Amino acid sequence: MDTAVDIPSTLTDEELRRLDAYWRAANYLSVGQIYLLDNPLLREPLTAEHVKPRLLGHWGTSPGLNLIYAHLNRAIVARDLSALFVTGPGHGGPAIVANTWLEGTWSERYPGVGRDEAGMARLFRQFSFPGGIPSHVAAEVPGSIHEGGELGYALSHAYGAAFDHPDLLVACVVGDGEAETGPLAGSWLSTVFLNPARDGAVLPILHLNGYKIANPTVLDRIPESDLLAMLRGYGYQPYVVAGDEPAAVHEALAGTLDRALDEIAEIQRRARSGATSERPRWPMIVLRTPKGWTGPREVDGKQVEGTYHAHQVPLSNVRSNPEHLAELERWLRSYRPEELFDATGAPVAELAALPPTGDRRMSANPVTNGGTVLRDLVLPDFRDYAVDVPRPGATATGATGELGGWIRDVIAANPQTFRLFGPDEVASNRLQAAFEVTDRAWMATTVPGDDHLSPDGRVMEVLSEHLCQGWLEGYLLTGRHGLFTSYEAFIHIVDSMVNQHAKWLKVTRDIPWRMPVASLNYLLSSHVWRQDHNGFSHQDPGFIDHVMNKKAEVVRVYLPPDANTLLSTMDHCLRSRHYVNVVVAGKQTAPNWLTMDEAVQHCRRGVGIWDWASTDGGSEPDVVLACAGDVPTLETLAAADLLRRHLPDLKVRVINVVDLMRLQPSSEHPHGLPDSAFDTLFTRDKPIIFAYHGYPWLIHRLTYRRTNHHNLHVRGYKEEGTTTTPFDMVMLNDLDRFHLVIDVIDRVPGLGDRVAYLRQEMTDARDAARDHTRRYGEDDPRVAQWRWVRETDPTNP
Amino acid sequence: MDTAVDIPSTLTDEELRRLDAYWRAANYLSVGQIYLLDNPLLREPLTAEHVKPRLLGHWGTSPGLNLIYAHLNRAIVARDLSALFVTGPGHGGPAIVANTWLEGTWSERYPGVGRDEAGMARLFRQFSFPGGIPSHVAAEVPGSIHEGGELGYALSHAYGAAFDHPDLLVACVVGDGEAETGPLAGSWLSTVFLNPARDGAVLPILHLNGYKIANPTVLDRIPESDLLAMLRGYGYQPYVVAGDEPAAVHEALAGTLDRALDEIAEIQRRARSGATSERPRWPMIVLRTPKGWTGPREVDGKQVEGTYHAHQVPLSNVRSNPEHLAELERWLRSYRPEELFDATGAPVAELAALPPTGDRRMSANPVTNGGTVLRDLVLPDFRDYAVDVPRPGATATGATGELGGWIRDVIAANPQTFRLFGPDEVASNRLQAAFEVTDRAWMATTVPGDDHLSPDGRVMEVLSEHLCQGWLEGYLLTGRHGLFTSYEAFIHIVDSMVNQHAKWLKVTRDIPWRMPVASLNYLLSSHVWRQDHNGFSHQDPGFIDHVMNKKAEVVRVYLPPDANTLLSTMDHCLRSRHYVNVVVAGKQTAPNWLTMDEAVQHCRRGVGIWDWASTDGGSEPDVVLACAGDVPTLETLAAADLLRRHLPDLKVRVINVVDLMRLQPSSEHPHGLPDSAFDTLFTRDKPIIFAYHGYPWLIHRLTYRRTNHHNLHVRGYKEEGTTTTPFDMVMLNDLDRFHLVIDVIDRVPGLGDRVAYLRQEMTDARDAARDHTRRYGEDDPRVAQWRWVRETDPTNP
Ligand SMILES: Cc1ncc(C[n+]2csc(CCOP(=O)(O)OP(=O)(O)O)c2C)c(N)n1
Ligand SMILES: Cc1ncc(C[n+]2csc(CCOP(=O)(O)OP(=O)(O)O)c2C)c(N)n1
Ligand SMILES: [Mg+2]
Ligand SMILES: [Mg+2]
Repeated sequence: MDTAVDIPSTLTDEELRRLDAYWRAANYLSVGQIYLLDNPLLREPLTAEHVKPRLLGHWGTSPGLNLIYAHLNRAIVARDLSALFVTGPGHGGPAIVANTWLEGTWSERYPGVGRDEAGMARLFRQFSFPGGIPSHVAAEVPGSIHEGGELGYALSHAYGAAFDHPDLLVACVVGDGEAETGPLAGSWLSTVFLNPARDGAVLPILHLNGYKIANPTVLDRIPESDLLAMLRGYGYQPYVVAGDEPAAVHEALAGTLDRALDEIAEIQRRARSGATSERPRWPMIVLRTPKGWTGPREVDGKQVEGTYHAHQVPLSNVRSNPEHLAELERWLRSYRPEELFDATGAPVAELAALPPTGDRRMSANPVTNGGTVLRDLVLPDFRDYAVDVPRPGATATGATGELGGWIRDVIAANPQTFRLFGPDEVASNRLQAAFEVTDRAWMATTVPGDDHLSPDGRVMEVLSEHLCQGWLEGYLLTGRHGLFTSYEAFIHIVDSMVNQHAKWLKVTRDIPWRMPVASLNYLLSSHVWRQDHNGFSHQDPGFIDHVMNKKAEVVRVYLPPDANTLLSTMDHCLRSRHYVNVVVAGKQTAPNWLTMDEAVQHCRRGVGIWDWASTDGGSEPDVVLACAGDVPTLETLAAADLLRRHLPDLKVRVINVVDLMRLQPSSEHPHGLPDSAFDTLFTRDKPIIFAYHGYPWLIHRLTYRRTNHHNLHVRGYKEEGTTTTPFDMVMLNDLDRFHLVIDVIDRVPGLGDRVAYLRQEMTDARDAARDHTRRYGEDDPRVAQWRWVRETDPTNP
Repeated sequence: MDTAVDIPSTLTDEELRRLDAYWRAANYLSVGQIYLLDNPLLREPLTAEHVKPRLLGHWGTSPGLNLIYAHLNRAIVARDLSALFVTGPGHGGPAIVANTWLEGTWSERYPGVGRDEAGMARLFRQFSFPGGIPSHVAAEVPGSIHEGGELGYALSHAYGAAFDHPDLLVACVVGDGEAETGPLAGSWLSTVFLNPARDGAVLPILHLNGYKIANPTVLDRIPESDLLAMLRGYGYQPYVVAGDEPAAVHEALAGTLDRALDEIAEIQRRARSGATSERPRWPMIVLRTPKGWTGPREVDGKQVEGTYHAHQVPLSNVRSNPEHLAELERWLRSYRPEELFDATGAPVAELAALPPTGDRRMSANPVTNGGTVLRDLVLPDFRDYAVDVPRPGATATGATGELGGWIRDVIAANPQTFRLFGPDEVASNRLQAAFEVTDRAWMATTVPGDDHLSPDGRVMEVLSEHLCQGWLEGYLLTGRHGLFTSYEAFIHIVDSMVNQHAKWLKVTRDIPWRMPVASLNYLLSSHVWRQDHNGFSHQDPGFIDHVMNKKAEVVRVYLPPDANTLLSTMDHCLRSRHYVNVVVAGKQTAPNWLTMDEAVQHCRRGVGIWDWASTDGGSEPDVVLACAGDVPTLETLAAADLLRRHLPDLKVRVINVVDLMRLQPSSEHPHGLPDSAFDTLFTRDKPIIFAYHGYPWLIHRLTYRRTNHHNLHVRGYKEEGTTTTPFDMVMLNDLDRFHLVIDVIDRVPGLGDRVAYLRQEMTDARDAARDHTRRYGEDDPRVAQWRWVRETDPTNP
């Protein structure tokens, strides 16, 4: 079968010799970074003082990464490719740093680290060194689009980078250990969503070095025929390059890479000529070479090269063990540095000539610094999509459905730079208006009756939150925009991916040459309160809590209470840069509270008094009813209505919070309200009954330093739920209007006996509402059809 | 090729007819649950009043689940199998509930819902109804081992259930949508870890009904040859059963199931006879039938059967639209209920005779109610593994390494009921002593030099946190014990899985017939403060925060400060039931503080004053130094030491917290300290400087209701990190000893001018420590080699 056969290269011996020299140089520089403090070119015999006291880093993956990088460089020059290198085994920092230094990018970004002997010394010293650079292919490394610390996302990032970049080749190295992760395994089928006519190409290179940290890898130890069947099943044409003889591997890899790139070119030519819109069989490479190749074969009698012992630092006692020291020196000298670097320490001319130059260098490709190619979205004026709100609560719509119209037009207006991502939930979350102007991306077969599937679709739907997230991250990091819509509960699936992205945003803020990228935007719907079809498993508002632990300067959380505020919020998010924006909004029909003008103003404030719902007449209230989230807002207003009717003298202030960060002290978050402003709004000493969308503790966490915190009583989701009616859900968690009134009664001092009857009425109302659901299976219409009505309204019953 | 060829069954027409009748009965009951409030047997013409007002549930997947269930029942009886049904498309609640009612288990568990007409009416009414049961295959459903709400974990749960259950057949239905998720994709290769001689069998049934919520599925629309290649690549022998003609599908499915079960039996026979220890090619079934099969073909002119429109409720306006009502009646009557149920409403005799009886029913298999088969672990006395601590800090060890010896003996003592799980990190987290008595489970090839790989291994290592978690959940839920060890940061990968497991624990506590299972135990090491090789991407202590949002009665978090406390804590966790226990502990060499007796007592208290480190002499202190976590404890003691030397008059109380839940009010958590006890410990009015392992806000969240909360100042991880030295890491986050002393100086009133010099000394010490790392690449030995020494100790400098 052709996959396992060596494809000979057409390179001359001279060309192959040069490739090998380049590889040796990168390997030398990798080892140097892990070990050396000084004597970078081994001009003097190596001594313990030249060696770092703490040896930190990962050698095992490095020679393979270096090999691939060198061969790609050769091909990029030969074909004038625009390419990018995604490093799955991101712990291979030494390798990628070495390559960026060899091709000059490192020194351009960090002029203190020149391409000379002193620079090389600094390059070595800084690696994994206090005050230096991380051990991974982190944000500091030119050309990197992820830290690569947490394994599993290389391939989804690669596809995300390739979307809408027709001229881009994304070379993606997947570690064979990494390939065991669920997210990576779920990424192979991305080919179903990549359109060769419109998108760039991904060239996966499965780096089958056989080992992970302490174990062999599964893919290395199953029969090769199975491995190839699996990859073919995923739609690839895999080519195996295997060996441990450098010359032979160079030969085979060069030939195979050329074959793969020819095939990619042919796939793209055919697709772009319109000859076919079929899903092609994309080539990929399986590279089977030893882990820690060219490193120490044995250490202390134990085999190291070609085993997991090569994963980190093969020789670990170099400073104290003279044999280790001698072995290290032998190892370094085996690369023949004197042939690779000239008298100044710079790569010799023939090496300097090998890699591409300028933007063609993978480490300098502008898309890897996404902010530099980022263009503002063309955003239709969201005000034009306003729902009509003659008075608060007079109309009702589904917020996300209303947003859908605007999203549709955002998609239409930005046909190459914006995509919508969702795990089979775009329509369920009511953004189906998008399909008026586009389809779902789909390269597999279609049948009559299919709903908006086409190779050109700009909606990315796949039942994998990981894939949606990974694609979107890749898309954003290479300079485009996007929106991820998911069920609120299941966005936890990507908690750890958000962590890594937030870390990236945090670190890159302080790297001067990294330009801000578009924000990572979430629209979470089908939220905890309205999981009517699904119940308890689908109820979890904790993603907000999760992102709140990230650095304040990179996270934003919004809880728009209705359609117009959602429109205003989303417009804000799509304009923003370098944040993680979390927006939670309902999809079910619910009252609209604010006109568009009011909504814009309310969102600008982030938190504000709703005077039309308050009865404190502009003076000091007896109690503050605060709310955040659409359902809590509805219940709060219903409670305010009850209070107005039953306790007309009680001065109630209703506050709505749309920007959760406002609650934090201004010292903690840039959006935080100053204490004085907070005190003015929430009073210094009156009870606050806060109806919150999520877990109540979060509100306490945000406000514990506020003057009036001890008067704050929060209702929210306390992990009580099932498949039941919407009102039963809020009752289960004591967030219902009746319970909020009870909370007011219990907290406001001096209401005295006159409220005993009202309190009883409220508990009775809860019982009656519950009984109604048990009997009829739906909410009592008196509850469900409650509407906000102005006191002066003639229809007010 | 044999996979796609119909395998004819050897069943008689009569047997096939009976299978079909059983299937129709289950389908009828599924539709009835979704729609009917009354008139369950259609004894009268269907009217709108018989129909539920809110139609909630999922029809589309149900006929396929019913088909598989019926055929399995037939085979179980024929072969006297012990089997279990894992429902990937867990939204198919109606199907599994129907089957449990048909086979009698439902009525046994819920005597109010008998197998008669009144019972059927209740069965229908309760489904997705307020006060009734969830719409999913939830904990309430006998035979279920997961809610099945969040897709992706069916196969890993199935394998977990099969481990160490040699006589068990786990039939696992995987939705074709579900198969797109990363976790599911990463689960196929579980065959590499399943030993046919020791473990049971998993029979995956890929339910290729072609659609998910609103889209076709990828696996349905790639070429079938690719799909089969992929599955073969994963090591299976796939058999396709396809069709939309019931009789033909029954025939093919029965024959194929028999073939698959024959192969499984043969695989097990060969493995158990010792003939081979090779990884077998396990059979699996690909079932390609229409989504919503036997449901309405078209509704309002739109095709429904065989499309995604069948996913939830095909006819949605039954109460208001007479045509829909008529169509529903036609649909229900198409199953010919009069042939299926007798005059009393019970299944007719020939149906009642089809399924297995007693424990052979999949819904009554004892392992699906894991607590009923759970046996206590045989636990060696952890005290025997104590490290010697002649005085606090006099010895130093790696805590997890010490634990390893005990874990080793736990493994040895429980050779069928305990496993250790880890994503390639068991040795990295220093539990390698386990390999003195066992190996890593591994059925793939081995080569010389491999480290403890064998089919009989009891350590489960695969580079997939999802797989580790899924296996462990399956293992626990079917009545066994386990421990998951992971890097602290990457355990976030399974956040959402923990959510679902915690929900399961919460719900099953209130289901009387569900018996408590063993706790889900985490040992998180390589924690935020000691990620020496890896840096920022590997630094995240937020999993603790994540689990804190779960119901208090199911979560426990422990931060043992040293080896003996870790041993005591782990013993406690492995004895416990029905919790999620999170234990965070270091692997690096660190001081031991407590003798084993002290450790046991300290762990029992959960929080306690360390009098040997305190200088308040049993009286009221001037300041409380609290700490939780090994590194914060070290820094706190070093700070206490500095204070003792520099401010000998200052009365310092040192408190260590091992059980984080102690901090909460007793009203919030069963472990919570009463307010009076908290006040006594932490004082009512003295400054508390709290050095905490994780994000500092959590401590505020736990204590905001405590009297002295306004005096609480917490230091912890504030998302500052990189690859650097251990002490530089704590300095980056102001958690270092010098900063803690500064905090004391800044918070304790009345220290006056005399401390100005000390404060400056402390900032100088920070600068010096930082400079040292920048110059030498390691921590200043004066910092790194600091030891706790008693005042009276002669070696005290
Ligand atoms: C999700 C995740 N789990 C665990 C780790 C810890 N880890 C770091 S490197 C590594 C092994 C990687 O093996 P492989 O992908 O084969 O890369 P190689 O070094 O062999 O090229 C592991 C498990 C991680 N980085 N990410
Ligand atoms: C992780 C996750 N993401 C999204 C959902 C929402 N969801 C519920 S059912 C479903 C489709 C499932 O399709 P499939 O697995 O094919 O099951 P079928 O109903 O077709 O048998 C989706 C996406 C979910 N339950 N879990
Ligand atoms: Mg590897
Ligand atoms: Mg399906």
